[in-house]
Amino acid sequence: MEETFVPLEGIKNDLKGRLMCYKQDWTSGIKAGVRILAPTTYIFFASAIPVISFGEQLERNTEGVLTAVQTLAATSICGIIHSIIGGQPLLILGVAEPTVIMYTFMFNFAKERPELGRNLFLGWAGWVCVWTALILFLLAILGACSIINRFTRIAGELFGMLIAMLFMQQAIKGLVDEFRIPKREDTKLVEFLPSWRFANGMFALVLSFGLLLTALKSRKARSWRYGSGWLRSLIADYGVPLMVLVWTGVSYMPTASVPHGIPRRLFSPNPWSPGAYDNWTVVKDMGNVPVVFIIGAFIPATMIAVLYYFDHSVASQLSQQKEFNLKKPSSYHYDLLLLGFLTLLCGLIGIPPANGVIPQSPMHTKSLATLKHQLLRNKLVKSARESISKNASLGQLYGNMQEAYHQMQTPLIYQDPSARAQGLKELKETTIQAATSMGNVDAPVDETIFDVDKEIDDLLPVEVKEQRVSNLLQSVMVGGCLAAMPILKKIPTSVLWGYFAFMAIESLPGNQFWERILLLFTAPSRRYKVLEDYHATFVETVPFKTIATFTIFQTIYLLICFGLTWVPIAGVMFPLMIMLLVPLRQYFLPKFFKGVHLQDLDAAEYEEQTALPFNIAAQSEFGAGASHIGEGEIFDEVLTRSRGEFRHTTPSPKINSSTPTPRNNPQSRLSPRPSFNSRVGEFSTEQSPRSGTRGPNSPMAREIRLSTRGVSPLKPDSKPQDKK
Amino acid sequence: MEETFVPLEGIKNDLKGRLMCYKQDWTSGIKAGVRILAPTTYIFFASAIPVISFGEQLERNTEGVLTAVQTLAATSICGIIHSIIGGQPLLILGVAEPTVIMYTFMFNFAKERPELGRNLFLGWAGWVCVWTALILFLLAILGACSIINRFTRIAGELFGMLIAMLFMQQAIKGLVDEFRIPKREDTKLVEFLPSWRFANGMFALVLSFGLLLTALKSRKARSWRYGSGWLRSLIADYGVPLMVLVWTGVSYMPTASVPHGIPRRLFSPNPWSPGAYDNWTVVKDMGNVPVVFIIGAFIPATMIAVLYYFDHSVASQLSQQKEFNLKKPSSYHYDLLLLGFLTLLCGLIGIPPANGVIPQSPMHTKSLATLKHQLLRNKLVKSARESISKNASLGQLYGNMQEAYHQMQTPLIYQDPSARAQGLKELKETTIQAATSMGNVDAPVDETIFDVDKEIDDLLPVEVKEQRVSNLLQSVMVGGCLAAMPILKKIPTSVLWGYFAFMAIESLPGNQFWERILLLFTAPSRRYKVLEDYHATFVETVPFKTIATFTIFQTIYLLICFGLTWVPIAGVMFPLMIMLLVPLRQYFLPKFFKGVHLQDLDAAEYEEQTALPFNIAAQSEFGAGASHIGEGEIFDEVLTRSRGEFRHTTPSPKINSSTPTPRNNPQSRLSPRPSFNSRVGEFSTEQSPRSGTRGPNSPMAREIRLSTRGVSPLKPDSKPQDKK
Repeated sequence: MEETFVPLEGIKNDLKGRLMCYKQDWTSGIKAGVRILAPTTYIFFASAIPVISFGEQLERNTEGVLTAVQTLAATSICGIIHSIIGGQPLLILGVAEPTVIMYTFMFNFAKERPELGRNLFLGWAGWVCVWTALILFLLAILGACSIINRFTRIAGELFGMLIAMLFMQQAIKGLVDEFRIPKREDTKLVEFLPSWRFANGMFALVLSFGLLLTALKSRKARSWRYGSGWLRSLIADYGVPLMVLVWTGVSYMPTASVPHGIPRRLFSPNPWSPGAYDNWTVVKDMGNVPVVFIIGAFIPATMIAVLYYFDHSVASQLSQQKEFNLKKPSSYHYDLLLLGFLTLLCGLIGIPPANGVIPQSPMHTKSLATLKHQLLRNKLVKSARESISKNASLGQLYGNMQEAYHQMQTPLIYQDPSARAQGLKELKETTIQAATSMGNVDAPVDETIFDVDKEIDDLLPVEVKEQRVSNLLQSVMVGGCLAAMPILKKIPTSVLWGYFAFMAIESLPGNQFWERILLLFTAPSRRYKVLEDYHATFVETVPFKTIATFTIFQTIYLLICFGLTWVPIAGVMFPLMIMLLVPLRQYFLPKFFKGVHLQDLDAAEYEEQTALPFNIAAQSEFGAGASHIGEGEIFDEVLTRSRGEFRHTTPSPKINSSTPTPRNNPQSRLSPRPSFNSRVGEFSTEQSPRSGTRGPNSPMAREIRLSTRGVSPLKPDSKPQDKK
Repeated sequence: MEETFVPLEGIKNDLKGRLMCYKQDWTSGIKAGVRILAPTTYIFFASAIPVISFGEQLERNTEGVLTAVQTLAATSICGIIHSIIGGQPLLILGVAEPTVIMYTFMFNFAKERPELGRNLFLGWAGWVCVWTALILFLLAILGACSIINRFTRIAGELFGMLIAMLFMQQAIKGLVDEFRIPKREDTKLVEFLPSWRFANGMFALVLSFGLLLTALKSRKARSWRYGSGWLRSLIADYGVPLMVLVWTGVSYMPTASVPHGIPRRLFSPNPWSPGAYDNWTVVKDMGNVPVVFIIGAFIPATMIAVLYYFDHSVASQLSQQKEFNLKKPSSYHYDLLLLGFLTLLCGLIGIPPANGVIPQSPMHTKSLATLKHQLLRNKLVKSARESISKNASLGQLYGNMQEAYHQMQTPLIYQDPSARAQGLKELKETTIQAATSMGNVDAPVDETIFDVDKEIDDLLPVEVKEQRVSNLLQSVMVGGCLAAMPILKKIPTSVLWGYFAFMAIESLPGNQFWERILLLFTAPSRRYKVLEDYHATFVETVPFKTIATFTIFQTIYLLICFGLTWVPIAGVMFPLMIMLLVPLRQYFLPKFFKGVHLQDLDAAEYEEQTALPFNIAAQSEFGAGASHIGEGEIFDEVLTRSRGEFRHTTPSPKINSSTPTPRNNPQSRLSPRPSFNSRVGEFSTEQSPRSGTRGPNSPMAREIRLSTRGVSPLKPDSKPQDKK
């Protein structure tokens, strides 16, 4: 995305880009068939459960003026509109915690003013939304989102971590409250005896930890050793919703002698009751608001606008991180404009507005990457099996797979036409070359030479099923919650807290900040294990001390931001603290860290561009073998394997501190055993001049693949064949 | 052990063998220093906690005649005597569940007879012990333990599984009871209100699952990625006792408004109260028992004797399994004789007798193997580091390590003097040969060529620190529990149930029966993963269908035995069912399974001997390279690594269905990819003619080692060095 501050230019570019792939957004989603339901259900739960919980919170804080009915409606309406006419369909919209805090503050303010009072609160809030919308329009038109380019990993990931901490805090608070008597309730009920409170709290511990542990386990089902393929797949796809059901079921097990209110369950209003829709005609009341308050509404509107501008853009950015290899363009400017309209709409019908949410948006992208991986995999496995059954050679087999792969590709590649050649090609070439060296490239392949299941997992690059169907469906399902409220009320609140903790933990993998924190706690003697798994470039190129200093700085900053959220109302403004990171990163950090290190730890686009000349030089040295790699682009590979979730391997070809003379230094730091390595060296050094890299084609990856190959099928009668 | 039924011959042999190493049993234990405390504490908890729980059970069943004071005293006294003058010091003695059931039955019988009554119960039980002792003497003298040779894996492991199931059953029963009002208690107390019962049950769930999960996690601490080496070591060694402390601490957290009895804690008598030792002078009462009852005591005595004969021998056998590579001889006959004396002693002082227990005895051996591994490792790491600092060559380095290794060896090798050459030698030779082929055997070694920490883990064979100190210390500590009873009473019963479940789960790894059950549930496409880890020979050599049939047969048999334990009093006689397996295995199973398959699944000694001629033939073909392997002996390697616990690799050189012509068939089933393997083939086929094996020196192990070597140290400033 270019930095453009010409009015409307950004919106125009966004629209142009997204319109090109609009039709494909729908067709590809529909083509995915029933499998699209896996990410849909996953995100629906991640979206609906917090919204219901925030609705409960809002109901307590606004004396019942706003309830879960309104938050669900807002989330559903905004979600449906965004999924149809929004720019980036990976972005998930929802009523979030900051909105709840702002609305609480506004309610308390209005309640104490005799001119407004409880009755005119929604009317006044409508005016706040009008102002907010206007500011958002202005920001969108003036291209304020261009600044997102200056948002580096440090800011985005710090924000992601902060949200994870807030979710975890909510989970802990909620659990502690299970031991107490909830506010607003009749304390004379038998269930509020101290003994039953204690029992309720302990039951809550069992239910929430039960949900958390089983949900985390179920996400890893794909890599389980036990059970058949389709069962593992089913559990991985639908395990989390299933666990919510299971633990809700468990909460009904103790019936005898346990009072009705144990364990505590969701308290939600009946959306079918008369009066539930009274406040939806709030636009009438807006005329009754005194002018001074209409003008005064500008102050909270500024705060909300800044908040939304920030939240919406960062949520969008985190759902489009580079390691996802997205093919379709971003749409920050246009989405902000649309957010303005949505805020206006919500204000006028008296519901709290929804904006882009974390961690749901990146979770959405991740689940769609898993989906795409499954679809690609099935297609390629089928193609490979067919080729083998036709006695094809290894060359033909790769040719057929290549073709199948291209059939699955998005027909329009917006950004980089040269990227088309990417994907399987590199791997095809090197593997064929390897086969040639053994003189059997033309011999018929069988499964002992080409282990279909394992091989294809290694071949597949990360791609995301970019479409609008999953977002639309989940928004409709959130709306369906309104009808299903009587069923939702059966969910114990403690399952909710377990789910909050689950969401916090699920958002961590892939966050480099989190992974650097873990690295700090890794014993020096075990750090080589980090290199055995997925890892980002910096692990190899940046000295440990620098990593540690950088991470500690970021951690302290995170804790300050977290502390700020505790400050009553100013706490909502923590985004300003995070925005402050942009100038800090650009002008302050380079004084303390070497440029090359900063670039590896936290590459900013403006820095990557300056690195370009070096890069070209390096590429010419690498020769044609590296030509497929985008210029100066970090090419993160994310593979679903080791943790049933994502695995990043970074064959970073961009210039960094460890690649001065690739040809003259074939034994990089990664292979510190020249003597032992040289046994397989003939093969590996020829194949891979980028010996500092760790791609699926690096000498090491190849070695590991060779050695695992040595193991393989048990017996002729029990050949590894995925049943699915 | 020879099969000898010549009277006293077995005892004589046992005594001769154990006397040879008696002095070394003490010196080597003392030399281990403070590290001996790790296995000691581990076994002390595993020994004391069930004994206390059985004591509670006995107290309820005998109306307080026998309590935890008596069971602890019996365990401690028998343990101390056995550790000093017993034969096999790996064997752990304790009052076990069958004893509790028998004593309960005897108490109920005595209570209803006016001639005996509650008062003469212990006197009569004394006579039962006298008879039991006589039968045990007879069995020991006549060499009944020779039959242990006929006990194959199928019987031993089935028994081990059964005990694990009984422990798990106890844990579940205990947890369910936490929701109920305990018998014998004042039901009017506030803590027995339904609400507090429910709260108590829920709290119990939290505490027991907390203990179970954290204890299991802590056992794997050694392979954690985080924390420094000494901390991980400390947690792995003392994690389980620590967790009992931690969760007992947690049980004290809710103080306000929670009544005293929540959560329920151990109920134990005060050993300092007057009258606590009244029944210890029971020998006076024995004269008052009517003669008819003295004679009648023979009937329960027979049952107890059969039970003890079986339990004691199998516990001893399971703690001496072949994969532990024990160096010191067994002592079944003499230990049974000693058990007779111990039973007599216990009977005369009015306490229930103790016998060899499962799973504590095998747990003891395993923890001592871990200790020995640590000790050997430290010694060799030190030696290797010294060599490297002196710029030694690879050859010198291995020489020095070899010497250090021999210094650590038991000076007397009882069974097989040729075994002395074993150990590091094989690996030394092959690795030097490999180094020679690269022409750097005389060059100074540095840590990039020889990664001390990793290399040594690969080199070390499994050995057990066989000594008497840990057993003596743990017995003394069990005795110390009597004094510490007021402290023990602070442990919640729910922590106990968690501990029972922990023991059941801890006893499973390494049990091939269990691993075969898991294999049945492994998806066909994932079975290759089993081959990547540790695995026993049968996985490669026996068709899956045969494995499945065999395992299902064994599982049904197990379930029948488990069902039998529910039959009121005859249930104690389930050992007879297991003994029935001996003839079944010898005469019935060979009709349904091929001999070679049976031998791989469940090798009996009598079958191994017949395999000898083939073996010799095969060895001559293998050449000198295989000469160090004992004849027809399964050489199971157990390495502490992958799960912080044991890893078996079985380079079984004995003839089985897969090794017809080793020379002519260098590509065995294990390397089904001739084309890919041939890249490193030159090296691996020359080095390792036993291509069907999976030892640390097999082609595959070597390949894997090569590939992991490619990874290694991060950066010059963060070289992998264990801090410890």
